[in-house]
Amino acid sequence: MASRTADQYISFGSGDAFPRILPDLTAEAAVALTTWRSETLQYASRPGLTALRETIAEIMANDGADMSPSEVQVVNGAKHGLELVCRMLLSPGDTVVVTAPTYFTAIPVFRNCGAGFVEVGRDREGMDVEELEATLARLARTGAGLPSLIYEVPDFYNPTGITMSRRRREALVALAERYSIPIVEDSPYRQIRFTDHCEPLLKSLSPKHVILLGTFAKMVAPGLRIGWVAASSDLLEQMAQAKSDGGTCPLTQRIVVEFCRRGRLPEQVSRMRECYREHRDRMVTALRRELPEVRTDVPDGGYYLWLSLPPGVNADDLERCAEGRGVGILSGSRFFAGLHAPPTNRPAPTSFLRLAYSFAAPDEIDEGVGRLAAAMRHLAS
Amino acid sequence: MASRTADQYISFGSGDAFPRILPDLTAEAAVALTTWRSETLQYASRPGLTALRETIAEIMANDGADMSPSEVQVVNGAKHGLELVCRMLLSPGDTVVVTAPTYFTAIPVFRNCGAGFVEVGRDREGMDVEELEATLARLARTGAGLPSLIYEVPDFYNPTGITMSRRRREALVALAERYSIPIVEDSPYRQIRFTDHCEPLLKSLSPKHVILLGTFAKMVAPGLRIGWVAASSDLLEQMAQAKSDGGTCPLTQRIVVEFCRRGRLPEQVSRMRECYREHRDRMVTALRRELPEVRTDVPDGGYYLWLSLPPGVNADDLERCAEGRGVGILSGSRFFAGLHAPPTNRPAPTSFLRLAYSFAAPDEIDEGVGRLAAAMRHLAS
Repeated sequence: MASRTADQYISFGSGDAFPRILPDLTAEAAVALTTWRSETLQYASRPGLTALRETIAEIMANDGADMSPSEVQVVNGAKHGLELVCRMLLSPGDTVVVTAPTYFTAIPVFRNCGAGFVEVGRDREGMDVEELEATLARLARTGAGLPSLIYEVPDFYNPTGITMSRRRREALVALAERYSIPIVEDSPYRQIRFTDHCEPLLKSLSPKHVILLGTFAKMVAPGLRIGWVAASSDLLEQMAQAKSDGGTCPLTQRIVVEFCRRGRLPEQVSRMRECYREHRDRMVTALRRELPEVRTDVPDGGYYLWLSLPPGVNADDLERCAEGRGVGILSGSRFFAGLHAPPTNRPAPTSFLRLAYSFAAPDEIDEGVGRLAAAMRHLAS
Repeated sequence: MASRTADQYISFGSGDAFPRILPDLTAEAAVALTTWRSETLQYASRPGLTALRETIAEIMANDGADMSPSEVQVVNGAKHGLELVCRMLLSPGDTVVVTAPTYFTAIPVFRNCGAGFVEVGRDREGMDVEELEATLARLARTGAGLPSLIYEVPDFYNPTGITMSRRRREALVALAERYSIPIVEDSPYRQIRFTDHCEPLLKSLSPKHVILLGTFAKMVAPGLRIGWVAASSDLLEQMAQAKSDGGTCPLTQRIVVEFCRRGRLPEQVSRMRECYREHRDRMVTALRRELPEVRTDVPDGGYYLWLSLPPGVNADDLERCAEGRGVGILSGSRFFAGLHAPPTNRPAPTSFLRLAYSFAAPDEIDEGVGRLAAAMRHLAS
């Protein structure tokens, strides 16, 4: 295998799916394109197919969040959902609570709405809710204007892999309710867990205050571009008006419905869990072997490792150097919303790296970590 | 057949495809989901699949508009493309040139960007370019600020069905070039023509000044949600950043590529032309028989008839009354951007109707026109 991977670019950069775990959807597509042709090839309704909204409501109910299909809006992936929610809730000059670091692809979505950031810290229990409480109290006291929403990825955070503790979840929703600030719970990795343990959805703790973004990208396949927003029917009705694509693709919606109706979802999720646990273990082992000076927590799910680099190694330099050696990684500096932006204007930390273990095959993970180690030695020399 | 349609709701409202003309795409989907699985079920690149962009560039070149695949951005339908273009070119307070009437679904897209309207008239040759010229000269003279874009549907206008003459096309692009105002050419119906005659694309007359919105919705199937924007690579690069869904669904993109590679597009387009010509003829004949007091031009393509009602019949009332009798139509008042909006604040005309002949079957067209005639007699009595 070494000869296959030797010349090949290895990506630990983006959270793509492992190609060999992608399911065979030909039977679902054939049914969708014959039995359901006049639905799947026609314009679709804006809220999404009723059958899919029912399926999603059932998935949510099984996860502790009871809701009706009318509280589900189908969107073109969770990020599209985030953008629609932001367009409903944010005006230029508003602020959004994010942690430092935060999911880097969300940052430009908030910025495009003209929003600024209130950054709070995070530790091994997730968002530092006490710090947020102090910040909100200060903002209320000074009349500086409260944030318009709180953005959080409670399960297997992207990029740190950390899951928010139950205690913190309860404190966060209580705080948000007290200040009447909606929480956007973005939880794409929730089902990709490697242990039986599972904390409650924020949405189940505070059904009215939490807007949940869900997706089939990690459970079935990213390419289907099917996600959802779970929120009040009122907000969803406004959102549907702003959904300029009209309806989300009815063909891929129906493929998901068929996939779930055939009972394939649990088996696929369990294959995904097994696959990505193996990838995680392989990467952690390789890092301990090749880069013992790097520290990382071992996440219980998701796609990512968050590495703390030893003093003197700059993550931005390492990203470039590793790229030159054929391994794609992301400098942690990309994950700080306040980077070079008012009011803090401080540079983002350059002592972290995010590695995705999802896409590369196990033997590529070994090879890629070896290249990363070589890049680090080169920089340190 | 009369008994089948007697109790059934008949829709002349939206421009849905005729269900029986939708193609069988199962073979294309099977190839897309097997041979191309690691592409079609993975995250896609933002500009779109290279193979699809090449296919689109070829379609455009065959239509007289030479371009490279790098000047093509794949989007989730033409309306999504319009929204992305507007987000690039419009700021709150800007204005957009539209004709009265204009494509009603575009109106909220412009409004959501905070834009106002400069309305110009249209006749049987399309947009009244002389009127636009006088308006632009006045705006330039008074320093009132020029419009930021000109929106036009030159082929088989929605709603009027009228195609812009060559003379007008040349005058429009010359005027837009003179004032440096980009033109958005929205042309979904261009291939659905019932004669051999065809005017040049605005894009072919002024490649640098015209942004073209194209779609496979009318040529293949709306449900695929595959459209494109043809513009300069610079504008497209900015647009790709704002495309919050990441890439458009790679599965439906690949299905379109396979469909075109198998050479099925010309045959499908010619089936569509034949089908909708038959629908148009059926509706025109039924209207002449049942509603001789109504005037309409007979369009050479597209999906719609634009009806002028006799004096004393209010189109808004007729829409409601027809709905109650089981036939869906749209009052022409929906198609005027200036409706109840500053600065004109005048009510929209209520003497027009738009009928779509695309979706209903020929026997339903007869039945639906009969119901419309009954509704009109009821209102007049």
